[in-house]
Amino acid sequence: MSVAATTVKSNLTTQIWATLDQAARRRVLQRPAQDSQGDIIADARDIIAMVRAEGDTALRRLTRRFDGAQLEQLRVDTHEFAAAHAALSSPQHTAIRRAIENVRRFHAAQELAEIDVETSPGVRCQRVTRAIAAVGLYVPSGSAPLPSAVIMSAVPAQLAGCPQRVLCTPPQRDGRANAAILVAAELCDVHTVFKVGGAQAIAALAYGTQSVPKVDKIFGPGNAWVTAAKQLVAADPAGAALDLPAGPSEVMVIADATARADFVAADLLAQAEHDPMSQSILLIDSADLAAAVLAQIDQQLTKRLRRTILLQSLKQSRILITDSIATAVEIANDYAPEHLILQVDNARSWLERIRNAGSVFLGPWTPEPMGDYCSGTNHVLPTYGYARAYSGLSLLDFSKRMTVQELTPAGLSDLGPTAIELAELEGLDAHAHAVAIRLNALQR
Amino acid sequence: MSVAATTVKSNLTTQIWATLDQAARRRVLQRPAQDSQGDIIADARDIIAMVRAEGDTALRRLTRRFDGAQLEQLRVDTHEFAAAHAALSSPQHTAIRRAIENVRRFHAAQELAEIDVETSPGVRCQRVTRAIAAVGLYVPSGSAPLPSAVIMSAVPAQLAGCPQRVLCTPPQRDGRANAAILVAAELCDVHTVFKVGGAQAIAALAYGTQSVPKVDKIFGPGNAWVTAAKQLVAADPAGAALDLPAGPSEVMVIADATARADFVAADLLAQAEHDPMSQSILLIDSADLAAAVLAQIDQQLTKRLRRTILLQSLKQSRILITDSIATAVEIANDYAPEHLILQVDNARSWLERIRNAGSVFLGPWTPEPMGDYCSGTNHVLPTYGYARAYSGLSLLDFSKRMTVQELTPAGLSDLGPTAIELAELEGLDAHAHAVAIRLNALQR
Repeated sequence: MSVAATTVKSNLTTQIWATLDQAARRRVLQRPAQDSQGDIIADARDIIAMVRAEGDTALRRLTRRFDGAQLEQLRVDTHEFAAAHAALSSPQHTAIRRAIENVRRFHAAQELAEIDVETSPGVRCQRVTRAIAAVGLYVPSGSAPLPSAVIMSAVPAQLAGCPQRVLCTPPQRDGRANAAILVAAELCDVHTVFKVGGAQAIAALAYGTQSVPKVDKIFGPGNAWVTAAKQLVAADPAGAALDLPAGPSEVMVIADATARADFVAADLLAQAEHDPMSQSILLIDSADLAAAVLAQIDQQLTKRLRRTILLQSLKQSRILITDSIATAVEIANDYAPEHLILQVDNARSWLERIRNAGSVFLGPWTPEPMGDYCSGTNHVLPTYGYARAYSGLSLLDFSKRMTVQELTPAGLSDLGPTAIELAELEGLDAHAHAVAIRLNALQR
Repeated sequence: MSVAATTVKSNLTTQIWATLDQAARRRVLQRPAQDSQGDIIADARDIIAMVRAEGDTALRRLTRRFDGAQLEQLRVDTHEFAAAHAALSSPQHTAIRRAIENVRRFHAAQELAEIDVETSPGVRCQRVTRAIAAVGLYVPSGSAPLPSAVIMSAVPAQLAGCPQRVLCTPPQRDGRANAAILVAAELCDVHTVFKVGGAQAIAALAYGTQSVPKVDKIFGPGNAWVTAAKQLVAADPAGAALDLPAGPSEVMVIADATARADFVAADLLAQAEHDPMSQSILLIDSADLAAAVLAQIDQQLTKRLRRTILLQSLKQSRILITDSIATAVEIANDYAPEHLILQVDNARSWLERIRNAGSVFLGPWTPEPMGDYCSGTNHVLPTYGYARAYSGLSLLDFSKRMTVQELTPAGLSDLGPTAIELAELEGLDAHAHAVAIRLNALQR
């Protein structure tokens, strides 16, 4: 971009890790606070109650209020799908198709084998997989329509064989859904799309309305109201499960003197443009390169379209100079970033030491947006430190594992007394009896 | 048991499914209401705050208050472990060892293979597994000490390779932990055991105290306060994740005329003795057998030790006569039981049709307590209808999947334009730039 703009300064500070005490280290790696958001939760609760009480009537009213769209029919019809296809350019079509192909290839490899083990003679245990019957896919639109979010949930839902796949996305003011979202949905074999957004979409998916079918689990990102609604319906056994706890997107980049300052700066900015709450952290073992990255950030920032968001999110972003890459890796394991980019010599050699991260990007030619869109990995990842205990979205999340056991009479004769011993140890006499009554029958 | 007792009547009612309308069907399959439990949540919140503020001091005070035990040292020492071993009989030892062996065999088979796929030329995507660094295992004791609960979380935690495995269990009034729980823990290679129970144990595990290390995820059953505390700490990003949403234990038995009434009755009672909130439901296609089961229930009930609990839980238990086993299977799929027992002719032939259940027990020689204790499957299962979207505990729950990608220059040249197209479609210009800056470098 050659448009000259006033130079923008990021005011990003550089700190030397070794000089920071424990408290300062904690502070510098602190994530932006997520407010308790009592108001948002109360709003979401009200909206859910309205949708449960009034169904489609509430959806139409809330869509008028929040999206400024007056809709008779909530469901996208074949004409609208056709118009969406016509609205996209050929390169846009091709890009969506290629992303779907790669995501499909990587997720297809995730299919779980059935397990069938004879744990002791005559005792057969199995694990079988069953697709979740009905899944809801939420896709935000409005200021940032996300066709990539369609791909990341619709592809594994299709591969898992979920029979009912329902997508909700808010309409534009003109009453239409975003064309790229519709095209991505149709190419992923999702044909049930409703123009409903926000907490009202989550409520409709969790409980069903006259037109929106009830689902068992809801996937997809959203604003604070969507997140609050997902939590509320997941806490209700009559509601619907959710994919992953939400948090602002974030990246940690580890770089050594072999890294290019302009690449590193571009990666930090790519993450930071998501949201004013996003956090980009650079761990680097060279003070010279740190200075060069900082200069590059200011230079690139000047040309970026989403400067306003960048200037906010860079406030909680950091450059930390570490004494070694080994130290940087340990910091990353403590922080547990959603995205971890390694721009160091022989990046792959460090992989074994990485314990906590959502997704890892190795080497100079693997910019993070490749994972967001089309490398094949899923971009729904544990953020905000959740990578310590959670995994990113995968095929596993669209099905359930069910165990099965079958004992032969000989198997029960052999193992039954073990169960009786343990049931008696736990004081569960009816448990012991359910085994004993059969052992008695076998002895006769 | 030959002790004569007054005959106890279950008052279990038998209903004919075909004669019930939609509302009656819903009513008859309704689970016992779980109270919103505002008081319990408030209590749990207070206890968590105390433990966070005062650490071990709060743990000692709360242990005195709730368990009636005065403890200086919270951690179980080697002398107490030795005394626990001495307190158990040889058959008890053997039973615990056999259960561990079978659970280990079935869970070892669940190890996930690494995935390594070239999704397009020069684009390598991997999925690798990392153990969760620190896991907390909660084991209730008091009126019902559960050594089996140790096995179900400690065995997969060890197999997954979680480096830090911490167990908490409430002390008895004499200040000791239950001997069977300690023996099971040691045999599962868990040596860090604290005598702390209730919400205070969950708080200690989630945030750490002077003696209890902080963990990333907490496993195990517990009373209403434990459940509330697990939910509260899981909702806090600084807390700890939880295993599965909790609910009262339940069973559904499907039986045809080939089933034995005494076995079926014993299975319904085994489930019902867990808790006054437990639910046992029998689906049966023979009115004669239904009557025989009912008679058997009354007869067996009279001899059971936990009659008081049984009489309460049988209030929400049901016998439903269906016109066929196919109908019964559809009802089971709607209900999504934690445990599903098939005592029908050629039980295995129905397995393919079972879509929603935690664990399935096939045939007359597979009583449900075999799965509770020693068949090898995990007894931590989705209850309360959660089997529609959740799986029972498995090796997967003790580790996380991390994705990795690495592109060659040629891979990026080929696929980079796809990412740029999609980033522009989403209006994310810094995303597009992070790719474009590299494509430019490659073109030079």
